[in-house]
Amino acid sequence: MTKKMWGGRFAEASAASVEEYTQSESFDRALYREDIAGSKAHARMLGVTGIISPDEAETLVRGLDQVLSEIEAGTFVWKRELEDVHMNIERRLTEIVGSVGGKLHTARSRNDQVGLDFRLHVNARLEVWRCELARLVDVLAGRAEEHAQTLLPGCTHLQPAQPVSLAQHLLAYAQMFKRDHERLADCLKRVRVSPLGAAALAGTTHPIRPDLVAEGVGFPATFANSMDAVSDRDYALEALFCGSVVMMHLSRLCEEIILWANPNFGYVKLPDAYSTGSSIMPQKKNPDVCELMRGKTGRVYGALTTLLTIMKGLPLTYNRDMQEDKEPFFDADRTVSASVSIMADMLAVLEFRPDAMLAALDKGFLNATELADYLAARGLPFREAHHATGAAVALAEKKGVRLEDLSLEELRGFSPLVDQDVFVVLGHGAAVRRRSLPGGTGPDPVAAQLAALRGWLVSVR
Amino acid sequence: MTKKMWGGRFAEASAASVEEYTQSESFDRALYREDIAGSKAHARMLGVTGIISPDEAETLVRGLDQVLSEIEAGTFVWKRELEDVHMNIERRLTEIVGSVGGKLHTARSRNDQVGLDFRLHVNARLEVWRCELARLVDVLAGRAEEHAQTLLPGCTHLQPAQPVSLAQHLLAYAQMFKRDHERLADCLKRVRVSPLGAAALAGTTHPIRPDLVAEGVGFPATFANSMDAVSDRDYALEALFCGSVVMMHLSRLCEEIILWANPNFGYVKLPDAYSTGSSIMPQKKNPDVCELMRGKTGRVYGALTTLLTIMKGLPLTYNRDMQEDKEPFFDADRTVSASVSIMADMLAVLEFRPDAMLAALDKGFLNATELADYLAARGLPFREAHHATGAAVALAEKKGVRLEDLSLEELRGFSPLVDQDVFVVLGHGAAVRRRSLPGGTGPDPVAAQLAALRGWLVSVR
Amino acid sequence: MTKKMWGGRFAEASAASVEEYTQSESFDRALYREDIAGSKAHARMLGVTGIISPDEAETLVRGLDQVLSEIEAGTFVWKRELEDVHMNIERRLTEIVGSVGGKLHTARSRNDQVGLDFRLHVNARLEVWRCELARLVDVLAGRAEEHAQTLLPGCTHLQPAQPVSLAQHLLAYAQMFKRDHERLADCLKRVRVSPLGAAALAGTTHPIRPDLVAEGVGFPATFANSMDAVSDRDYALEALFCGSVVMMHLSRLCEEIILWANPNFGYVKLPDAYSTGSSIMPQKKNPDVCELMRGKTGRVYGALTTLLTIMKGLPLTYNRDMQEDKEPFFDADRTVSASVSIMADMLAVLEFRPDAMLAALDKGFLNATELADYLAARGLPFREAHHATGAAVALAEKKGVRLEDLSLEELRGFSPLVDQDVFVVLGHGAAVRRRSLPGGTGPDPVAAQLAALRGWLVSVR
Amino acid sequence: MTKKMWGGRFAEASAASVEEYTQSESFDRALYREDIAGSKAHARMLGVTGIISPDEAETLVRGLDQVLSEIEAGTFVWKRELEDVHMNIERRLTEIVGSVGGKLHTARSRNDQVGLDFRLHVNARLEVWRCELARLVDVLAGRAEEHAQTLLPGCTHLQPAQPVSLAQHLLAYAQMFKRDHERLADCLKRVRVSPLGAAALAGTTHPIRPDLVAEGVGFPATFANSMDAVSDRDYALEALFCGSVVMMHLSRLCEEIILWANPNFGYVKLPDAYSTGSSIMPQKKNPDVCELMRGKTGRVYGALTTLLTIMKGLPLTYNRDMQEDKEPFFDADRTVSASVSIMADMLAVLEFRPDAMLAALDKGFLNATELADYLAARGLPFREAHHATGAAVALAEKKGVRLEDLSLEELRGFSPLVDQDVFVVLGHGAAVRRRSLPGGTGPDPVAAQLAALRGWLVSVR
Repeated sequence: MTKKMWGGRFAEASAASVEEYTQSESFDRALYREDIAGSKAHARMLGVTGIISPDEAETLVRGLDQVLSEIEAGTFVWKRELEDVHMNIERRLTEIVGSVGGKLHTARSRNDQVGLDFRLHVNARLEVWRCELARLVDVLAGRAEEHAQTLLPGCTHLQPAQPVSLAQHLLAYAQMFKRDHERLADCLKRVRVSPLGAAALAGTTHPIRPDLVAEGVGFPATFANSMDAVSDRDYALEALFCGSVVMMHLSRLCEEIILWANPNFGYVKLPDAYSTGSSIMPQKKNPDVCELMRGKTGRVYGALTTLLTIMKGLPLTYNRDMQEDKEPFFDADRTVSASVSIMADMLAVLEFRPDAMLAALDKGFLNATELADYLAARGLPFREAHHATGAAVALAEKKGVRLEDLSLEELRGFSPLVDQDVFVVLGHGAAVRRRSLPGGTGPDPVAAQLAALRGWLVSVR
Repeated sequence: MTKKMWGGRFAEASAASVEEYTQSESFDRALYREDIAGSKAHARMLGVTGIISPDEAETLVRGLDQVLSEIEAGTFVWKRELEDVHMNIERRLTEIVGSVGGKLHTARSRNDQVGLDFRLHVNARLEVWRCELARLVDVLAGRAEEHAQTLLPGCTHLQPAQPVSLAQHLLAYAQMFKRDHERLADCLKRVRVSPLGAAALAGTTHPIRPDLVAEGVGFPATFANSMDAVSDRDYALEALFCGSVVMMHLSRLCEEIILWANPNFGYVKLPDAYSTGSSIMPQKKNPDVCELMRGKTGRVYGALTTLLTIMKGLPLTYNRDMQEDKEPFFDADRTVSASVSIMADMLAVLEFRPDAMLAALDKGFLNATELADYLAARGLPFREAHHATGAAVALAEKKGVRLEDLSLEELRGFSPLVDQDVFVVLGHGAAVRRRSLPGGTGPDPVAAQLAALRGWLVSVR
Repeated sequence: MTKKMWGGRFAEASAASVEEYTQSESFDRALYREDIAGSKAHARMLGVTGIISPDEAETLVRGLDQVLSEIEAGTFVWKRELEDVHMNIERRLTEIVGSVGGKLHTARSRNDQVGLDFRLHVNARLEVWRCELARLVDVLAGRAEEHAQTLLPGCTHLQPAQPVSLAQHLLAYAQMFKRDHERLADCLKRVRVSPLGAAALAGTTHPIRPDLVAEGVGFPATFANSMDAVSDRDYALEALFCGSVVMMHLSRLCEEIILWANPNFGYVKLPDAYSTGSSIMPQKKNPDVCELMRGKTGRVYGALTTLLTIMKGLPLTYNRDMQEDKEPFFDADRTVSASVSIMADMLAVLEFRPDAMLAALDKGFLNATELADYLAARGLPFREAHHATGAAVALAEKKGVRLEDLSLEELRGFSPLVDQDVFVVLGHGAAVRRRSLPGGTGPDPVAAQLAALRGWLVSVR
Repeated sequence: MTKKMWGGRFAEASAASVEEYTQSESFDRALYREDIAGSKAHARMLGVTGIISPDEAETLVRGLDQVLSEIEAGTFVWKRELEDVHMNIERRLTEIVGSVGGKLHTARSRNDQVGLDFRLHVNARLEVWRCELARLVDVLAGRAEEHAQTLLPGCTHLQPAQPVSLAQHLLAYAQMFKRDHERLADCLKRVRVSPLGAAALAGTTHPIRPDLVAEGVGFPATFANSMDAVSDRDYALEALFCGSVVMMHLSRLCEEIILWANPNFGYVKLPDAYSTGSSIMPQKKNPDVCELMRGKTGRVYGALTTLLTIMKGLPLTYNRDMQEDKEPFFDADRTVSASVSIMADMLAVLEFRPDAMLAALDKGFLNATELADYLAARGLPFREAHHATGAAVALAEKKGVRLEDLSLEELRGFSPLVDQDVFVVLGHGAAVRRRSLPGGTGPDPVAAQLAALRGWLVSVR
């Protein structure tokens, strides 16, 4: 009974619901450029190898160019019922060039075709990420250069630890984004492998030249095994992982800017363009962009989880589950490329407040390490120097003064090794200057670090 | 230098890029119904409590109804620059009713407003999930009823273990989806709590009546703590978790249908409407819908990961990160509701192949447990019965025959307890029939299980 | 060649490596109490139903009690080569009671046995979580009671928004943990279902009474479908989800305590027992416990991801993949139960600094909303009141003073509706007191909230 | 009241519970080798640079060697109350060498020390992964060589698509594991960077030589920025990602072996050492190792999720949350290294069943593509050839025969281009042989692929 009742109702409905459920046209049309570029390279190869005539190849290429023009002009009519970007383009091509259009699909399958399209797309987008990352490193380098003399409390455990220069702090992020850039370069080696010629899964019987297609699309390598070629989504996973790490780095920087914008810190003033007000509290100036960016980290982690889940336990070769690879990447790409770009823009105009940073340096005995090192340099085993300093801090805390406000006599009470020159050592500027080894926070290593980053930026331009 | 070079270019760009980055109108307009329902309840409460006059309240409600009509008629003009659904609606309301429109926002904030809207939306969608889940249970019950006599190999470790009825197999899934239905009922208790009146974070100074708003939107409870009220997204997390479990259950069923559609199994014939062909292999009939559904599981897991990541470590109260709560839910909702619905449709018309199932029963010694139980019932300690049966299986395997093809003498060689009646016991039908305890695969418990499910379906209708 | 070279080497090696890879004894021995409790209930049922004699049942129960004593006395010898907790216990039982020990496994399988053991364990641990959560709520209530008069800046976007009482802030967390407690109660309904009697997958032919076993272990329900019974791990997933939400809530509280311990905030002084020093920086006092707890959130999220991944796409019924369900739960349980407990202990002794909180109230115009509400209450549409207040804030900011330091004339410049009584409204204490509606931050609703929590605590004790 | 009740009880308890919660000795003692290697390199550098005397350096090195001997001899007494591996070793060193032991920690902090230790450990373990992966590729190559002539149905959508050689199928996995090997090489570039010299976060004032330490432990690079150096866990994340992809690849192979071991497929016979029986079903032979390995994929995904969650939103520099980086890596390492190794062992002895594969080739019209290609090669546009072939398949299906059992006349009915030579084309062996292009399934490209893999294996040995 029940079944019959639904039978009629849902049998009709299913056509539409299933079509909607399985179609990919609504999102994979974003691959039109890559689909056409891949098809042109394929058509030319078919012509060169004599699988079709040179004239036919030329006709297909011209037809594909026209399809591209129509899409970019907005005159192309996308049809959901043709399911995907490939069929939409091929159908229109056949309308333009006639039955020869049917020959374009010779010696290939949607399985290797979609693999090539997606690899081309990932390749193009990762290049954009790298470009934006380099720009972000450049902005960080520029701001670091401005703030080589600005000091602030360097924290561990979010507790003031030792004074550092703002330059060093900003360049720590520059190093992260540089590393992201390099990780993407490694990822791209595995993206730029053409799967065309793997056909459905077994290769083709036509005398094709996969290398020509790869060359045609600018890829240095072709697939080594046809079954792997149509089953592999490692490159997309790796891209999503790289994007996750980029967002993780951004989330750390956002967290700091959000903290610094809180009036208790007051280290930065947010640019109006990157903050918003409140509908109920007229005084508010909120770091919305940083909050959203921190939150969007979850989105890219989610995309990585999605694709890892999809690929787990799939038997060879292509399975339709893999159609779900694109939307997570598209979403992650929108997030990553916009986030890196906006962070670069925002950092370029973020107003730092050196005075507030300086004021904070006087809270928390940030020069305690200096005293310990001073004692160690005079021969006291480090663990003992640490102990003596701890006692001095306790005294200062009890008296409500800074370490440098204790008298020489008081300090000598903790170790006879203390001398008048200890007060030079206790100055924040001196503490930073003395950390002059490569990678340290002193002005010299920071300048060297900056120069190296500038050199690197030139090398990747 | 570099900075200047970009300065001009990006300063201009940023306005647009930041606006695009922070806006939510492109997706939260999906909440228009809930936003208007919540605002109407709020306006009425403001009138009842005298915060505004009854006439003003009436004007606001009528205005909101007109906005709703315009949106549903498609004549409403959405403006991206108004950022979100709330401002779009309020702006239009003010155009319609004049400056009294500004009073609607009295005694509330976007923080409690968006909380109410989202809770109303989650509530509405989870009800749809429950409705579809009940339909799916009903379909499974219907198919189980048809196949009460159909036997197939029940597997553990994907190895044939014991014969079961197809009814029992299908009802195992019915139990899962019933459990999902019940888990959602528990989740809904935490969804249906109105946060309106929490205002920005601290409550309001106006003499509001939160209970009237809750009643107005059909929620049984109001918030207990204003700061929790605007910080809480547990309900959305819980909805995403429930959706993840639903998809996990579906992915298991999909895996089985995919296996069963493979010619080596051949247990099902896929309906044309739920399978597709291949662009290169003319003979193919692929279980695309099941594959996609299995893949889409990753998508909902990803959404859960996203929101768990977002919420980790956020200080009180509202943070803009939380704007990222909606898209994961919207995406998961589209996936879950379509998947459950399509599975119900597909199962209703899926063609089972009892002959292929029966043929498979003769591979794999599925009646070995019967022999062991037979021996145990005659007093042999189970571990010894198990051992004797293993030896009998080894002999049958060596001779290339079924267990029931061994002679009585051969069987007695493994235990003198064996008698002629053993051959009755070794029949698959008998094996199933003898499992007649509640929850077992025998016809009686299956019938009882079916009756209980039917009763449950009536109770949740 | 290569193969041969390994052949010898690895054929031998594999025995050991595979045994290690597949064994579960090293971790599932944690289930010994539950395994013995389940076996005792099973043995008694076998006796009652006549499947074994009452004497045999009694012998088995006494033997199992002796095994339990030996394990708890530390004299039991666990054997890795017996693979799991079940075989270790059964083997020893048989040594103690002789061959009747072999009858214990009649009418059950490891599939339903391990399901029962794990459910009993999850049940016991979730009860511990609930107990600790209730204690944490109690501690929060106690601290809130102490600090009903302590005010601090309530934040949105980590920007000061409106003054709130510390009581209200702490009770926001109490509400979260109460919700966790309630969510666990719902979860437990699905945990407390006995699968015993499902046997391997199909039920058993013995005249068992599953209800007696359930009753024997204190579970209110038995399985509805044997195939579902041995395939279901929903209860463990749900427990891991509940644990993830608990940790998420804790991570938010930890984030706040870490912020508050930073000298720029200074809202708390960390108890020595919950903070540590630095090996290099003698002045440090780090909120290690809070940091670790925040980090351990990732661990429980990871456990949830693990089990969701494992269960995806598994065909019916039991698959060995499911053996991997236990370690994630054990690890998550250690994390959740220790974290909730330690947070309760730490909060009980955490020293709050009301003076620092008060000082922070004077930064950031937290009474701007009061002015806006004041104007709105005098009839100005809220959006206009908001605008006028924004202008007043801008003037105060420009003059470097607080809002209440502006003169009446200056304030009237923004709206003629302002009167002398505005200065009462602008006081922080007044702002808090006036939010006196249920759920608000005023003393009355906070007292009511506290009373309700106390009542709830009594009800769950 | 309540507080007091607990006060006494928990104040005492907390010492122990917090110590247990924060200690890392129970797991980071696994780093003892790396900790000692790093300390020796550090001591030697301190001697070379004159920060301590050469004699002191020598004493420290000899003392550390003694500690190492004691640990490896099992005579070292680990103390939980010393918190971590570093303090345990330093304390014992000081017992052995006297107060000079206190100088070892000069110019370093636990922050850079633990960073170096962990990097050394990850480096060592990833080398093991690479070694095992190469062995697995070697085993796959060996089995592929054996089965160059064995054919089986190549699947897409788990539906038979085209015949392929078992060699090609196995080599698809070899390509995946080779790719994993290469991805790890890229990851190692970022692992092998010494952070020693970054000290707590800002660098040190001592005239150290970080390059000497790096050289001493065999790392080619040193940190570029001290704050990044102690905050960076990218290398561990990247290792966990690489491990996740390895497990994903293994899970796909396991899924196939599980399918192939099902009697409906029957493509493999499981070696006894890699399968187990059932406690209740005497006939069972279960692919437990493959199931567990597939399940353990979730475990490594979980570890990746854990660390991604931990690192999100952490401000600079070191935070104690990061102590939670080690256990996920240790667990993932145990899983990955054992899984790859056991898969290699198992595949070496897995018995394939060519006859069963051959029998399966006759189900499912796997030569349909051949017919379509045949027609296309004779000039029919591919889409038309596809259509004609589909019609021929439909006829054969209706008649219950294979495609090659249709008569020439019948086939010509679908296209006049068909000739007698079509029957050669329809043979499975011919279909495989004709796919002779690089990367295809034909014997020539498979032989070339094998040779390339052998060459690669030599290059990475």
